[in-house]
Amino acid sequence: MGAIEKIVEGIKDLDAESMREAQKRQNELTKPPGSLGILEQISIRLAGMQRTAQPQIGKKVVIVMAADHGIAEEGVSAFPSDVTAQMVYNFAEEGAAVNVLARFAGAEVIVVDIGVKQDISSEKVVHEKIRYGTSNMTRGEAMTREEARDAVLVGARIAGQAIDEGASLIATGDMGIGNTSASSAIISCLGDIELSSVVGRGTGVDDEGLKRKLVAIEKAIKINRLNSEDPLDVLHKVGGLEIGGLTGVILEGARRQIPVIIDGFISSAAALLASKLAPKSINYMIASHTSAESGHSRALTEIGLSPMLNMNMRLGEGTGAVLAMTVVEAAAKLLSEMATFEQAGVSKEKREEISPTKFG
Amino acid sequence: MGAIEKIVEGIKDLDAESMREAQKRQNELTKPPGSLGILEQISIRLAGMQRTAQPQIGKKVVIVMAADHGIAEEGVSAFPSDVTAQMVYNFAEEGAAVNVLARFAGAEVIVVDIGVKQDISSEKVVHEKIRYGTSNMTRGEAMTREEARDAVLVGARIAGQAIDEGASLIATGDMGIGNTSASSAIISCLGDIELSSVVGRGTGVDDEGLKRKLVAIEKAIKINRLNSEDPLDVLHKVGGLEIGGLTGVILEGARRQIPVIIDGFISSAAALLASKLAPKSINYMIASHTSAESGHSRALTEIGLSPMLNMNMRLGEGTGAVLAMTVVEAAAKLLSEMATFEQAGVSKEKREEISPTKFG
Repeated sequence: MGAIEKIVEGIKDLDAESMREAQKRQNELTKPPGSLGILEQISIRLAGMQRTAQPQIGKKVVIVMAADHGIAEEGVSAFPSDVTAQMVYNFAEEGAAVNVLARFAGAEVIVVDIGVKQDISSEKVVHEKIRYGTSNMTRGEAMTREEARDAVLVGARIAGQAIDEGASLIATGDMGIGNTSASSAIISCLGDIELSSVVGRGTGVDDEGLKRKLVAIEKAIKINRLNSEDPLDVLHKVGGLEIGGLTGVILEGARRQIPVIIDGFISSAAALLASKLAPKSINYMIASHTSAESGHSRALTEIGLSPMLNMNMRLGEGTGAVLAMTVVEAAAKLLSEMATFEQAGVSKEKREEISPTKFG
Repeated sequence: MGAIEKIVEGIKDLDAESMREAQKRQNELTKPPGSLGILEQISIRLAGMQRTAQPQIGKKVVIVMAADHGIAEEGVSAFPSDVTAQMVYNFAEEGAAVNVLARFAGAEVIVVDIGVKQDISSEKVVHEKIRYGTSNMTRGEAMTREEARDAVLVGARIAGQAIDEGASLIATGDMGIGNTSASSAIISCLGDIELSSVVGRGTGVDDEGLKRKLVAIEKAIKINRLNSEDPLDVLHKVGGLEIGGLTGVILEGARRQIPVIIDGFISSAAALLASKLAPKSINYMIASHTSAESGHSRALTEIGLSPMLNMNMRLGEGTGAVLAMTVVEAAAKLLSEMATFEQAGVSKEKREEISPTKFG
């Protein structure tokens, strides 16, 4: 059994008994049952993950995987590949959006060079470069199957270390010029969704750029003859390294029973890969926001996730996931800290009426 | 000129120059312009409210107005009127959902008895009772026009005190058995929306209860001959005291140039009232979430607000608004704390391509 298969094998169902207890407690808290909506659902899922009726969120980390994409040379992005490395330094210096949001949410940012085109010289970056960016997938495989496997295992290892050091909630983040192209190919293939409906202006390209992007990805899919039944086949042929890394983060998070908040389009490609490799990993995924990138909600629907934020964001980096961290933490706190009807001496709803929804 | 008119008179437009500067800075920050979506828009609006290119959020308060409704005796709610007072004590003891969320968000909870049916004996509650609940609006006016006016002024006074004490961000919250009925009547009348499409199961009533609720509100609207051109006429005839209070909170917040986050269905009825009394007050409103209560999104659309959270919540109390406080604060921090392209040495997008949306 390979290393990835071992991780997959170790992913358990949610604990039904803890979820039942959490649901029971939710119904005893001073509010009409169900009136906290998704917050209640999250708290109950957290109970199932942590195997306790009163889950707690402690240390939080966002893992930002950075890598380059050979397809960038086809002019599919409004930014040059150099920006990947520049942004990695920006993450290291804490100047990027994800840094600001993580500081505010009390989360640690772990930046990983898993395949940036340039050498990165910063002690604040985790160096796990598998190769200097992927090859141009319009001309052949983006990377070897072995490299794709390595990328997943790097992600798993980094998530595992973070969990060893106390992480109780993980957010996924990405940086990589060209990675909406890779994600589009993955989502189209694994989700069996027409390519044109998942390719967006991700890079901010104009109409011509969008056409160019679509043609390039179509060519890449055709030339590489993807096997949609084999997630690793898809990953290694269209990339990217950071997407594989995030797949590993999600799988290991799931194996260790840690909730993983899925960011936007790129993270959702990784989540879709993880869901195909290990359907049970979906139990541990929490969707954060609906990206403005077309195709994102299609990917989430395919996995079976519903996002909670509607912010029209499309930056990546883990920004949406980190923003959702406070919501997830709030959900846990509500379950633990609210008073029960009995404690507060509040009358419950009248018996003849059911499913009350609001005090009002 | 009356006291409310004076407040209305004092509400200014947003400061265009500060907004231009904030927009300019947003475009210089290390991200594709616009890629932080609503977070960018909020930060720019905050700049316009605070009249500075780099707005800051300091002290936060949620003002929870509590009052009872005579229409509750028609069996329109799944909960007895006693619950209003019981929940006020729960707020005072910090056991309710809004308390947990406010503690987490670092916000102060100000609980106001503006018209609870029972006497409330707690030092932790602001006592501004105008009357012991409204009258049953199916039989006549819910309160006098003067009482409605007083309710608005109480809300304005309490918001003013909070601002004097440093509040820089206010969330609205409500408690009142029967108040979805009052809100439905207000929203239907002021928004010119058919009643049946704004009356929901708010109280968790079953099919029969829903019918009873609709019939009762229809009767109230008919008997009271509401003048949709006169917001105070509508408010005093269908209530409620807490809705009037929140209208005052919103108006005074706007006058003092403080952002006010609008919670769910009840708060949106108050926001709609405020928008009709003072269209410029909309400038200072920030919508938080889309409530599960049908008619809520209709009300927000009528005002011109877009909610950012999609949590299927329907509790009220200010819970959705407090949850959104962290998002608003994050928006301000991003604008102030992110590095610019120049500071970080990051390449901007290629010249020939426009409106970049994502690094990827």
